[in-house]
Amino acid sequence: MRDFLPADKARREHVLSIIRRVFREHGFDEIETPVVEDSDRLHAGLGGDNEKLSFAVMRRDLKTEELQQAAASGDYLELADLGLRFDLTVPLARFYASHRAELPPVFRAVQIAPVWRAERPQRGRYRQFVQCDIDIIGETGALAEIELLTATAATLDALGFAGANACTIRINDRRILRRIVETLGIPDASYERALITIDKEDKIGVEGVVKELVEQGLGTAATLTPLLEGLSSLAGDGWELLDSPPEWLDLDAYRELLTIRDAVDDSARLVFSPNLVRGMGYYTGTIFEIAHPALPYSLGGGGRYDGMIGRFLGTEVPAAGISLGFERLVDLVELPEDAGGAAVALVYDADVAPLQLAALKSELIATGVRTTLARRPKNTTALLEQLASAGYPRFAFVTATIGSARELEIRNIGAQ
Amino acid sequence: MRDFLPADKARREHVLSIIRRVFREHGFDEIETPVVEDSDRLHAGLGGDNEKLSFAVMRRDLKTEELQQAAASGDYLELADLGLRFDLTVPLARFYASHRAELPPVFRAVQIAPVWRAERPQRGRYRQFVQCDIDIIGETGALAEIELLTATAATLDALGFAGANACTIRINDRRILRRIVETLGIPDASYERALITIDKEDKIGVEGVVKELVEQGLGTAATLTPLLEGLSSLAGDGWELLDSPPEWLDLDAYRELLTIRDAVDDSARLVFSPNLVRGMGYYTGTIFEIAHPALPYSLGGGGRYDGMIGRFLGTEVPAAGISLGFERLVDLVELPEDAGGAAVALVYDADVAPLQLAALKSELIATGVRTTLARRPKNTTALLEQLASAGYPRFAFVTATIGSARELEIRNIGAQ
Repeated sequence: MRDFLPADKARREHVLSIIRRVFREHGFDEIETPVVEDSDRLHAGLGGDNEKLSFAVMRRDLKTEELQQAAASGDYLELADLGLRFDLTVPLARFYASHRAELPPVFRAVQIAPVWRAERPQRGRYRQFVQCDIDIIGETGALAEIELLTATAATLDALGFAGANACTIRINDRRILRRIVETLGIPDASYERALITIDKEDKIGVEGVVKELVEQGLGTAATLTPLLEGLSSLAGDGWELLDSPPEWLDLDAYRELLTIRDAVDDSARLVFSPNLVRGMGYYTGTIFEIAHPALPYSLGGGGRYDGMIGRFLGTEVPAAGISLGFERLVDLVELPEDAGGAAVALVYDADVAPLQLAALKSELIATGVRTTLARRPKNTTALLEQLASAGYPRFAFVTATIGSARELEIRNIGAQ
Repeated sequence: MRDFLPADKARREHVLSIIRRVFREHGFDEIETPVVEDSDRLHAGLGGDNEKLSFAVMRRDLKTEELQQAAASGDYLELADLGLRFDLTVPLARFYASHRAELPPVFRAVQIAPVWRAERPQRGRYRQFVQCDIDIIGETGALAEIELLTATAATLDALGFAGANACTIRINDRRILRRIVETLGIPDASYERALITIDKEDKIGVEGVVKELVEQGLGTAATLTPLLEGLSSLAGDGWELLDSPPEWLDLDAYRELLTIRDAVDDSARLVFSPNLVRGMGYYTGTIFEIAHPALPYSLGGGGRYDGMIGRFLGTEVPAAGISLGFERLVDLVELPEDAGGAAVALVYDADVAPLQLAALKSELIATGVRTTLARRPKNTTALLEQLASAGYPRFAFVTATIGSARELEIRNIGAQ
């Protein structure tokens, strides 16, 4: 877990404010849930592997007998009643089940908040990290996907991922994957296992996928290779299949993807990727993944998960969502040059009275200028460099004789 | 702990954005620390009673022997390596000790973040709540207090606590309290205990304070009452004591308070309150408390705590800070009427194509209008009411024949 120093924190808040603004314009409503959820709910099987990575919060009233019991059973989760959330989807499902009556029939949610996973620390992976999720609950039709993808494309634009720096959004549907697995001659019982292998293509290539499937007894290289190579080569050029649809293509799902593609503002970003899988077991229809041509990892993803919310309610509730990888985005976004604005540092001599300094500072702030104070040291150069890197591109020296901000000689740091 | 629905969340973000902006203008830099700190650090004696209220996070690799050991010792904190922070002061001290070399000699920090306390749930008390702290580390002089109080007064102004709705900031100094306790004839060994009693005056009155001090053997009603009543009656009228200073007044501390009063922008808010104590043991000089004339509780407070940061560094580091009670402020702030702006809801018939809806929505958003979609139900009145309360003051019906946003008839809800 990380501390964020002023420059990092300013960068994060800048990116967050853009994301918040765009999602809001697109009619999404931000909500917030507590960082902890009931331990039972976090371990209800909706979080996949992430459940094992959750941080458990101990009960506050533990008795010696309970400790003895846990020691006997070896199950230390008995001692926890709460846990830090590992994603924003489980809390959203719980939130929706609790507040459904207060929400509109179609609820467009934004959540921007930290989650925690006890992963082995490694470069680029953090144990506390921010997720930005948008979800639409209550809409069965493709309108949900259209709104989600349009808002996501607009957010990526606003963050500067446009033109030569544009991201693509890969899109597929679980129904298409099911038909592909059928066409490959893989039995229904091995569907999930086959998907896990197909999902590895970006790491091990088509050849590796075929090898693994053959090892699993799910076919021969001769039957598997042609179709899997065909799917892989389609990426980026898969929107023209209706004229002579291949056998492996689920036409209902494909036509829905075409509708989505046609309706999404900035549809050029959308790439049909029939070999896209996405890991989570709860997806039931469309799936998406945000990719940047220059990056080996995705910047987010999502899909339709119609079965999940209903598990908390006992009724079917359609839902679809996209999660943006905030930590990755924030590293890539270029900050505008003048984020510090006209900020000024008042560098004052030791004999200047606090009253005088306070008055000068207030005078500048009243004109809309972010202002800080710094006592003048022997080595002014080092101080000015530090002030510039802290977001104060301008400065003025303050001596005991200066009575008003009009008397200040404000200069650019670097042009002293 | 609470969920925040869209209206609440929008209100909170609105208030946060004002607080962030004003503190930033005043030269404070926002930082962020992880929500968990090492368990040992949270229980190092700097958190007062709050340490007992902290939520403990269990180690992830607990062995049966460790559970048995904890069962034997009865100390279940042995099983925790982390804990949720109960304030922002302990994390700030740890942050400063870790990053001192990267920070300016005088560091003005803002922290706006949740903290957790396992309090018995009661009205107006939450187990997760947001604190807004500003702190100045590295400044020994009154300039720190002046900058803190000026920024706080400006924030209160910006939040609408001005004019007839203004807050006052009560101010005192621990040195003045020490002299008062001396003057009351209370022995030095009973200083802390006497302060705890004097601090109760707002709840039990001067009479109650005197009764408790007498019960503690710290004086008689005849010796205690006149001075304590005199101090109490000074509140609001204590800035004219220099001409004939009373025996109980520590003059050095009082002169510093006068300097602060004179230099703080909007100094009319500052009230000298010689009977103000503030609970935490770590205060060493000035203390402040934000009060609203119409409210029985404070909206924040703080003071100088020169000894504390140094405990993590082994050297003396001067520090002073103010914490705003965000949860209380957010309930009191009046939102501007047009926070929803020109937002529009497009209420569409079931036969309107997704493509058409997406195009209309994008067209409106491109003109800067926050836009949402809602399928037209039988009971339009209920839907429109719900949309208005969700922040969409305007709407338009969309039928299958409408091809461009120019053809929409946008009306105010309520004026249909």
